[in-house]
Amino acid sequence: MAIKAKDSKVKFRPHFKTHQSLEIGRIFRSYGVDKITVSSLDMALYFAKDGWDDITVAFPVNILEIDKIKFLSSKITLNLLFDSVDSVKFVSKTLTNNVNAYIKVDTGYGRAGVNYKDVRQLREIIKEIKRQSPIKFKGLLSHFGHTYYAKSIQEIKDIYFSSVKILKNLKSELSDFDTDIEISIGDTPSCSVIKNFNDVDEIRPGNFVFYDIKMLSLGVCSERDIAVALACPVVSVYNKRKEAIAYCGAIHLSKDSVNFNGKQIYGIPVKKKFNRWGKINKDNYVKSLSQEHSLLRLTDNFIKDLKIGDIIFIYPVHSCLTADAMKSYVSLEGKLLDHM
Amino acid sequence: MAIKAKDSKVKFRPHFKTHQSLEIGRIFRSYGVDKITVSSLDMALYFAKDGWDDITVAFPVNILEIDKIKFLSSKITLNLLFDSVDSVKFVSKTLTNNVNAYIKVDTGYGRAGVNYKDVRQLREIIKEIKRQSPIKFKGLLSHFGHTYYAKSIQEIKDIYFSSVKILKNLKSELSDFDTDIEISIGDTPSCSVIKNFNDVDEIRPGNFVFYDIKMLSLGVCSERDIAVALACPVVSVYNKRKEAIAYCGAIHLSKDSVNFNGKQIYGIPVKKKFNRWGKINKDNYVKSLSQEHSLLRLTDNFIKDLKIGDIIFIYPVHSCLTADAMKSYVSLEGKLLDHM
Repeated sequence: MAIKAKDSKVKFRPHFKTHQSLEIGRIFRSYGVDKITVSSLDMALYFAKDGWDDITVAFPVNILEIDKIKFLSSKITLNLLFDSVDSVKFVSKTLTNNVNAYIKVDTGYGRAGVNYKDVRQLREIIKEIKRQSPIKFKGLLSHFGHTYYAKSIQEIKDIYFSSVKILKNLKSELSDFDTDIEISIGDTPSCSVIKNFNDVDEIRPGNFVFYDIKMLSLGVCSERDIAVALACPVVSVYNKRKEAIAYCGAIHLSKDSVNFNGKQIYGIPVKKKFNRWGKINKDNYVKSLSQEHSLLRLTDNFIKDLKIGDIIFIYPVHSCLTADAMKSYVSLEGKLLDHM
Repeated sequence: MAIKAKDSKVKFRPHFKTHQSLEIGRIFRSYGVDKITVSSLDMALYFAKDGWDDITVAFPVNILEIDKIKFLSSKITLNLLFDSVDSVKFVSKTLTNNVNAYIKVDTGYGRAGVNYKDVRQLREIIKEIKRQSPIKFKGLLSHFGHTYYAKSIQEIKDIYFSSVKILKNLKSELSDFDTDIEISIGDTPSCSVIKNFNDVDEIRPGNFVFYDIKMLSLGVCSERDIAVALACPVVSVYNKRKEAIAYCGAIHLSKDSVNFNGKQIYGIPVKKKFNRWGKINKDNYVKSLSQEHSLLRLTDNFIKDLKIGDIIFIYPVHSCLTADAMKSYVSLEGKLLDHM
């Protein structure tokens, strides 16, 4: 991803909310990354302590955390996300150090941000930012989250190109304010399948660091790209019904599910193989999750020598949530890695 | 629940996995509760430190945690759950102190436990237990988890009565081993709607301590029974589309959803009202959840004076998972309560 960004001459500002790990962050540094994205001010504080000094908090400003904003803006280049005049007013009123402002634009996902058609509101927010001395307007930021629901690679590309076009048009429509309005985008599906990031200035993918079954089901990664799995003890084996219980529930794996191979599943179990994990067989899957239980549906081949006390690995449907639930990692070499 | 159990002359062994709080546990103590259920050995250790000395771990024995079992069995009355001969053998081989054994029976839920029709396997497990001196056979334990998917109160009652009948028949079928085989049951839906717990010896409901939108949707509690809500800052208000973003995502609320009032929802927002929360309007709901975002769909009345920086309360779909994600509570009087 770093190389692809470099080839496209765009800034690479990876989202660190997926791994939330200083040690994994340092791997990014070795690829020349010096700007990052996070999803909370606490996460910004965590990474700022490790020397990251240019951080975008890609979440609408929570004005109740103004003290953290004050502190961070005195230490690092802090880029904040605004989608209302009210939040600009509040932050500027209380801030003395500079922060950079991006306006969150909704190009069709329908979650956060100013709808791209509402140019009047975009202009009002930019005007308010320009009026305020400690806030510097940088550009438009968008998350094309609807790519997560795409039915094909082509649909992901279509969403990407139509959304980028929307942002490009907005940029020219707003050029009376600034001629160098940046465009920052960054969902993992788009960034995985697009080769040249023309017309954008920055990409912010996060999930690609681990990928997961959701991304595999979308076809934007291959099995060997999935870099995280949950190690789970087997507590019950039911040979007759070809099912087993692993000690790993919604509190460990989180509870996202995905339609994979025609079934709604919560993860895919694979066996331990030397010091790593084995291959996926689509007929092995997590059928349901309770607070602490996973119910595994297994093939004859998987269950035949499975015993209580075995450790199996479960590929998560959503690696960000699983990593957040577990709060630490062990590398295949047995090294403990931090998680915020 | 304590009074109802007393009236039915059954042991009340509430499941503490919902609250996981020493302070909330002490409220139970004031109702005469002296036996509890937990879902992990770590949780048993947590409560044992606060003087709870009769604890059932209602999860199939994880033999990889044998050291915790050893320690706990030396300190308290520890009741473990078995559903295989292998786990009985493993535990008995390594244990010196006594533990009590329940066999997990599946009466139709299809998750953990020996299927009730597999009497041969039940007999084999009991035989193995009887062969082992440190393990004392106590009875049959079941979780009628299929009540969570019932379409009506009558269906919950039907599941309850048919499952209890199954256990009662098993008890008489196994009476050559013991004449006083205990029957332990305990899902919140059943325990909420059943008045007299005839033919069972022990009930273990947990969720009822807080209830939640799932239980409200089943009709087993009323709105005023819901005793926990997530306090969330509002970060974006979109008046035109009558939606708002609250700073509370899957990592805070967890990601269970429920069909409520014809829609698949992830929670119900209510406003703060003095030092408590206001009433539910079914047209206000959490439409979707990302890692840190809730997208709220709101009525005119709710959104009209909603501002960024407001705190709203979100009733969770699944209170156990939300409490586990948040790891602490604040009472309406402002007191901080522990969570494991």
